[in-house]
Amino acid sequence: MDSPVQSVAIFGVGLIGGSFALALRKAGFSGQIIGVSSPETIHRARELNVIDVSATLAEAAESADLIYLSQPILRIIECLPELDPLVRPEALVTDAGSTKSAIMERAAATLKRCQFLGGHPMAGRERRGVEAAEADLFRGRPYVLTPRTPAELETPRAREFADWIRKIGAVTLAFDAQEHDRVVAYTSHLPQLVATALAATLDGRPEPQSGIFGPALTDSTRLALSSFDIWGDILATNPGPILDALRDYIATLEDFRAGIDPDRMRPQFERAQRLANSVRGSS
Amino acid sequence: MDSPVQSVAIFGVGLIGGSFALALRKAGFSGQIIGVSSPETIHRARELNVIDVSATLAEAAESADLIYLSQPILRIIECLPELDPLVRPEALVTDAGSTKSAIMERAAATLKRCQFLGGHPMAGRERRGVEAAEADLFRGRPYVLTPRTPAELETPRAREFADWIRKIGAVTLAFDAQEHDRVVAYTSHLPQLVATALAATLDGRPEPQSGIFGPALTDSTRLALSSFDIWGDILATNPGPILDALRDYIATLEDFRAGIDPDRMRPQFERAQRLANSVRGSS
Repeated sequence: MDSPVQSVAIFGVGLIGGSFALALRKAGFSGQIIGVSSPETIHRARELNVIDVSATLAEAAESADLIYLSQPILRIIECLPELDPLVRPEALVTDAGSTKSAIMERAAATLKRCQFLGGHPMAGRERRGVEAAEADLFRGRPYVLTPRTPAELETPRAREFADWIRKIGAVTLAFDAQEHDRVVAYTSHLPQLVATALAATLDGRPEPQSGIFGPALTDSTRLALSSFDIWGDILATNPGPILDALRDYIATLEDFRAGIDPDRMRPQFERAQRLANSVRGSS
Repeated sequence: MDSPVQSVAIFGVGLIGGSFALALRKAGFSGQIIGVSSPETIHRARELNVIDVSATLAEAAESADLIYLSQPILRIIECLPELDPLVRPEALVTDAGSTKSAIMERAAATLKRCQFLGGHPMAGRERRGVEAAEADLFRGRPYVLTPRTPAELETPRAREFADWIRKIGAVTLAFDAQEHDRVVAYTSHLPQLVATALAATLDGRPEPQSGIFGPALTDSTRLALSSFDIWGDILATNPGPILDALRDYIATLEDFRAGIDPDRMRPQFERAQRLANSVRGSS
C-alpha cells in the first residue's frame, strides 16, 4: 500500500473547498494543506488559517497526494487536462462539482496518469466564499462518490479518501454519475428553479411592493438569492434531467390550475405533506 | 367616546387567536380575555394562561367589547350571522382570516348591529394550535385592516383596536379587501402552492428516496407541511386571483423550459435575486 496522504491541494478555496480543508484539520489530518485560488482568496484563506501554503496549479499538481477540485464545474472540466501531465501517478484527484456526468466524461478522456474519483458533498449555505467555510459543513450530510466501477472505491487512495469523508462526519454514498445527475435534477436543481421562478415572477410586480407578505415569501425566495455564476454551470451540464423535472413539476401545477376544489387539492396537500415529512426523516 | 375596551372575546384560540391574547396582555391590556373554542383547546388555553375564562358563543358575544374571530375562514363566515342578534351595539367585531373579500361580503350582509372591521395579521409559524402561540408573533409584521370606507377606521372602537395592534408591535396597513386578496394570491397563496406542488411532484418518486439531497430540499418543502384544513378555506375563498398567480408562475417556468441556456437564464436569476433581496429589505 502507498504511504498515507501527506499533502492535500485544494483547487478553489471557496465555501466547499475551504470547509473541506477545515474539516480535514479538525478530523486530525496532520499533513500539508495547499491552496490554489485567486490571490484575494488565498490572502483571506491564509488569514483565516484555512490553508497552510499557496501554490500555482503546476506546483500543487506536482506535489499533492490528494487533489480536491472545488472550483465551478466548467473550471473543473477545463482543469482536468491541465493536470494530467503534472500529477504524481499515485495521487488521487477528486472533485466536488454539483453535476457529475460531464466531469466524469472529461476525466476519463483527459486524466490518465492517476486515478480520478468524482464526488459531490450535499452540503451548502446561502453564503459563499472562504469566509463562510466551516469545519462542520459536511457533518451528517450525504457525500456522493461516483466511481466508474466498484473497484475504483477499493484502491488504497480511494479507501483513504472515503475514510476522511467519514471522519469529517459525512455519509458516503456510491452512485453512477448519470443516476446522480438524474436524482439531483429533482432533489436539488428543481427546488432551485422553483424558487428562482417564483421570485422572477414576482419581480417588478406591484404585489410584493405593497408590503403585504409574511415569512412564507421570505422563506420561499431564500434559494433565489443563489448566483447564476454557480447555477449557469449546473444548468449547462445537466440539461436533459432538469428539463424532465421541470416538465413533471409544470404538470402538477397545471393539475392545480385545472381546478383548486377540495376534491382535487386535498390529496395533493396530503401527498405534499407526506413527502415533506419523509425528507425530514419523520413518517 | 365610548369607554375603553374592557373585555375581549377570542373565537378560535389557536396560534393566531392565542398569540393575540398573549400579545394584548404583554402590551398592558388589563381587561378580561374570554376564550370561545373547543373544550380541549379551552383546557390547554387555560393551562397556558392564554385566556382568563371560557364562554359559549352567545355568552361571549353578549358581553365582549371586542370580538376577535380567529377561526378557519369558512367558520368565520358561518359565525357572522349567529353573532348579529347577540352583540352589543358598541362592540367591534374583527377577524384574522387570510382572505378578506368573502368575509367582508358576509359581514356586510349579516352583521348589522355593530361595526365589523376585517383584519389579516401577516404572521404565522409552522406549528399550529394554542401551544404554539406567543406574545411576539406579530412584532414587526404587517397587520392589514380592510375597512369598507376610510371613515370605518376613525370610529372610537376602530381607533382603539388599531392602537392595540401597534402596541403589540405590528404595523397597520389599510387595504381594500379585494386588493388585499389579489396581493396575497401572489405573495402568500402562490408560495404555498409552489411548495405544495414541488413536494407533491416528488412524492412517490425514486429520487428523494435515494437520500441524495441537501438542505435546499428540506427548506423548499417546509411550507408543504401546511395542512389542507387551513388551505382549503383559502383556496375556496380566493380562486380567481390564485388562478391568475398560478398562470403567471407557469408562464415563467415554461420560459425556463423553452431553453435553460445562459442568455435566457442569467436575466431570470438576476430578477429573482433582486426580488429576493427586496423582500429582505436589502437592495
